[in-house]
Amino acid sequence: MKRFKVRFYPENREIEVEEGENLLRAAMAAEVRINASCGGDGTCGKCRVIIDKGSAKREPSPALSQKEIAEGHALACRTLITEDLEVRIPPESRLGKIADKERPQPSCGHLVSSAEWEERLANFAADSPFKKVCLSLPEPTLDDNIGDWQRLKRELGKNGIKNSKIDLPVLKSLPETLRKGNWQVTVTVLQQGNECKVIKVEPSDTTKTHYAVAVDVGTTTVVAQLIDIVTGKTIGKRSNFNAQASCGEDVISRIIFSTKDKGLKKLQSLIVGTINKLIAELVEESGIDPDHICGILAAGNTTMTQLLFGFDPRYIREEPYIPTTTLFPWIKASDIGVEVANHTYLYCFPCVASYIGGDITSGVIVSRMAESDRLTLFIDIGTNGEIVLGNKDWLVSCSCSAGPAFEGGGVKHGMQATKGAIEQVRIDRDTWEPMIITVGRVKPTGICGTGIIDIIAELFLSKVINQKGKFDLEIDSPRVRKGEFGPEYVLVWAKDSALDVDIVLSEADVENLIRAKAAVYAGINILIESVSLNLSDIEEIIIAGAFGNYLEIEKVVTIGLLPELPCEKFTFIGNGSILGAHAAIQSQGVLKEAETVAKKMTYLELSTNTKFMDQYISALFLPHTNIEKFPKVIDQLEK
Amino acid sequence: MKRFKVRFYPENREIEVEEGENLLRAAMAAEVRINASCGGDGTCGKCRVIIDKGSAKREPSPALSQKEIAEGHALACRTLITEDLEVRIPPESRLGKIADKERPQPSCGHLVSSAEWEERLANFAADSPFKKVCLSLPEPTLDDNIGDWQRLKRELGKNGIKNSKIDLPVLKSLPETLRKGNWQVTVTVLQQGNECKVIKVEPSDTTKTHYAVAVDVGTTTVVAQLIDIVTGKTIGKRSNFNAQASCGEDVISRIIFSTKDKGLKKLQSLIVGTINKLIAELVEESGIDPDHICGILAAGNTTMTQLLFGFDPRYIREEPYIPTTTLFPWIKASDIGVEVANHTYLYCFPCVASYIGGDITSGVIVSRMAESDRLTLFIDIGTNGEIVLGNKDWLVSCSCSAGPAFEGGGVKHGMQATKGAIEQVRIDRDTWEPMIITVGRVKPTGICGTGIIDIIAELFLSKVINQKGKFDLEIDSPRVRKGEFGPEYVLVWAKDSALDVDIVLSEADVENLIRAKAAVYAGINILIESVSLNLSDIEEIIIAGAFGNYLEIEKVVTIGLLPELPCEKFTFIGNGSILGAHAAIQSQGVLKEAETVAKKMTYLELSTNTKFMDQYISALFLPHTNIEKFPKVIDQLEK
Repeated sequence: MKRFKVRFYPENREIEVEEGENLLRAAMAAEVRINASCGGDGTCGKCRVIIDKGSAKREPSPALSQKEIAEGHALACRTLITEDLEVRIPPESRLGKIADKERPQPSCGHLVSSAEWEERLANFAADSPFKKVCLSLPEPTLDDNIGDWQRLKRELGKNGIKNSKIDLPVLKSLPETLRKGNWQVTVTVLQQGNECKVIKVEPSDTTKTHYAVAVDVGTTTVVAQLIDIVTGKTIGKRSNFNAQASCGEDVISRIIFSTKDKGLKKLQSLIVGTINKLIAELVEESGIDPDHICGILAAGNTTMTQLLFGFDPRYIREEPYIPTTTLFPWIKASDIGVEVANHTYLYCFPCVASYIGGDITSGVIVSRMAESDRLTLFIDIGTNGEIVLGNKDWLVSCSCSAGPAFEGGGVKHGMQATKGAIEQVRIDRDTWEPMIITVGRVKPTGICGTGIIDIIAELFLSKVINQKGKFDLEIDSPRVRKGEFGPEYVLVWAKDSALDVDIVLSEADVENLIRAKAAVYAGINILIESVSLNLSDIEEIIIAGAFGNYLEIEKVVTIGLLPELPCEKFTFIGNGSILGAHAAIQSQGVLKEAETVAKKMTYLELSTNTKFMDQYISALFLPHTNIEKFPKVIDQLEK
Repeated sequence: MKRFKVRFYPENREIEVEEGENLLRAAMAAEVRINASCGGDGTCGKCRVIIDKGSAKREPSPALSQKEIAEGHALACRTLITEDLEVRIPPESRLGKIADKERPQPSCGHLVSSAEWEERLANFAADSPFKKVCLSLPEPTLDDNIGDWQRLKRELGKNGIKNSKIDLPVLKSLPETLRKGNWQVTVTVLQQGNECKVIKVEPSDTTKTHYAVAVDVGTTTVVAQLIDIVTGKTIGKRSNFNAQASCGEDVISRIIFSTKDKGLKKLQSLIVGTINKLIAELVEESGIDPDHICGILAAGNTTMTQLLFGFDPRYIREEPYIPTTTLFPWIKASDIGVEVANHTYLYCFPCVASYIGGDITSGVIVSRMAESDRLTLFIDIGTNGEIVLGNKDWLVSCSCSAGPAFEGGGVKHGMQATKGAIEQVRIDRDTWEPMIITVGRVKPTGICGTGIIDIIAELFLSKVINQKGKFDLEIDSPRVRKGEFGPEYVLVWAKDSALDVDIVLSEADVENLIRAKAAVYAGINILIESVSLNLSDIEEIIIAGAFGNYLEIEKVVTIGLLPELPCEKFTFIGNGSILGAHAAIQSQGVLKEAETVAKKMTYLELSTNTKFMDQYISALFLPHTNIEKFPKVIDQLEK
């Protein structure tokens, strides 16, 4: 078998592979991170690369035009290596670091700021599952010669920690530790309900150094925060893309990847690797001794959590959609490869069903909707739109497959909300000229989810597209044109873009987004109907999630993604998943409530619900078939 | 560094070592098993070998006479290798397999036979901590789409198994197992009080194949029994020497060995290795699938149990005598290296104190003395004599260091009760000629513990020795003579022995044994005194242990090891340790009671007890200073 060298730019990383190897796999092996949205199916067209030197065998794909092929473009997943290559990865195909910034208060709705969150979190009981206590034991004598562990246990009992157990390695080193500390030791206890487990014993008093890590295991992005358990404060925050992204963009493509040879193991090691990197960064940045991290509290959707544990997720994808488990055991983090001390324990928030995960449970808990008298709608929009309706007495939920449109997927120039992504757009009603703002205020490379919503709302209000999302090609503007793949609007001319191509939004892109928003809107209506209430009964709408946090309510309502309700009812809580994990580090009650909520929440499966199909079809208009439900939109259209 | 070859006979095994290597270490490395009673201190003289070829550097030792040195004898532990050697290991220095036979009913006292034990054990509640249950789960549907583990847990709940947890590897394979079994599975649950843990799930119905292993972890001998949990019957029994014996004969020398470099790890791996061999033999012999062994219940003295877990035992030896722990966690047997399936759990009987171990707790439970109205004395005689006094309301215990005399140690021609050991002796009152019986009825190689007691009783009754154990050299017999190390009695002439030397019992040996029996007798008296009772109040004496089981009460009372009480009060229960482990496999109640008993039993430390010293000194006579306490002995002496 012949072997060839492939060099990737701009990483300037080289790898040698066998003849016929797939270019995407080669990139993965070289640890070059390419956006492979569909997991290597050749359908999403996101793993576009440019072959600068050498020629490769390309399998045909509708995602590439003839002109692009002539210019050296190729889809990494559909390309086989047959000679030495030099491959350039354009910015839109690259997975990069996410910008971390706080959004200013939006014009409609209340955004819970970081400062407000610190206050809210402080209101959770300070009763961490991880307890550190310094004990001075009486020295053994002939009259008091019980075993070392019995002595420690007796003293723990005197301090209110009853029925404690102890980990074997801690027990093993106990005689030495007790004598080294001259019978003064600091004990770290993991409390789970009535059970207490001694997970660490250190000589002398170390109660002041006591940390845990909260993790939001997102499909796209993983966020980790270092929490000082003593003060309850966040002392570091890091985020990065989930390294699994190179195996598929959404949960379904990850599940498919997991069924391939060693796929599950690979996915587990990738997410664990991502978490390891984040923890290492947090440790380095904060300068703490990593040995003092006693716990990790994670929250993620059901599939992400199964993958983190290494559970086979394949039945999540097949009717009737069954995960291995929705409640997770406390485990030693090192048992799944997390690079922390041997005594560090990990817990994941319980899930409700295959498509309502621990991230939602976590968000519901931290938003306190499950303790509220008010009828609350909780919504987390991403690839899936997860929706929870209820109050302290009952909770009902559903999940609607929105597709990747809100995250910039399935859209020709869509991209994640990284540097260069168009995030805000205004279109002049007379000239149809756009004003655009990008993340990082740099030359645009594509359009992120909020940008797409903005554009569609603007195209609709400026009548470039009609209620069905169809383009009016009669409009007298070079920006409204018939492109290679049908009607489109040119947002950025090639000369102004970072890509040297026109950045456009096509009719197909609009249709994609309409389908996505229709699914979410229909889901909300199904929940409301299931409890025989009306949209107007909703007293609060909580919008969670990184994407949701940047939504402009006016635009969102204009396209009919969310119902038209007064601004004061909208609250943006941001990443509810990590906030819940933070709260759980601080308070055992949070974990207990999470289990209760996960068990009591009703889940409605929409995929086989005929009423949902009716609602969905009605919502495939801008803003809706029944536009009278959106009086403000009518006003704007009439302006 | 020069290297030399050492070949050991009769094993015919060769090893190459560096110049100056210790011969005992070379033997250990060659896996030749030599009796090293003192752990290599050069004090016990048990590791005697004969150098047939080559000469080695011998360090001087009082245990070797000049004549023996001239004949090539050497102590392996005191010999350094300086050239190629051929070394022969004589039978008395070799560790061999133990004969396994049942004793006939003794003339005094009742011996609980194996058959009677099967009956007694059947009376323990059939409520094993290891439960197998076959479940047929309803297949998941869209209306009933809880997680796989939640489905299994729900069904377990319906079968009365509440609040169950599950092991991570079992959870991992659960989706596959459930579907492979077409939703019919057999679940193995470990029940510990209110806690249930699913430790195994198999497709289809396997409830009929359900086994556990009971292990008695003795300092000298390890016994293992394969138990069919379904029937409660013993289906296999194996025993062998504890491989740790090559690191020291008693617990103290093992503890000393454990403090040497890697000593603890070595000791742990030796005992685990012994258990592994026994289990492998049981599996092979019975033909069962080892995957169906779900549990191991072990009982051993406090030091042996610490060593099995790998806990540092060093503080057991130093005042105030503290073990790492007296209560042990359930662990995966494979975590300490036991070669069984990953789902096999191990538990060790709780200990009372450093010198009252789980073997005693186990024996006390299985003898049912802790449920009895009758005042019972429980006694297990070995290197330590462990004594428990009490009834269902209270229990008090002590441990007296008897030294190795009862196990043939510290006695010139002493040996373990293996083939060729003199076990019974009668001495003619007129001619002073002996009649001897050996284990296996072969040429004698030495004297085992019961043999030594027999001889001393006989020597005393035939007045060869007086109350103080001193020889009457006036006796007109060639068998009573002054030997190289003082007065001695020749039991076997060289021509009749397997060793080509006279087998003798010396005055020093008698003194050793008197000290040992005095310690036990004093211990019994201290316990009785501590509760203000008299020996005559004792309603039952339970004699446990391999050694105890072969005692002749008449002889034992003659030397004053046990008090003179009516024969009907004596019961021999044999190996209480393994019997308790067997009972615990069958009944959770046994384990619960074991913890209760271990906690409630009072332990009296004798080493610092001045009353004990008084009692001890009074007992340094045959049978006792106050011979009037032994009217039957007076009768016999007067005959």
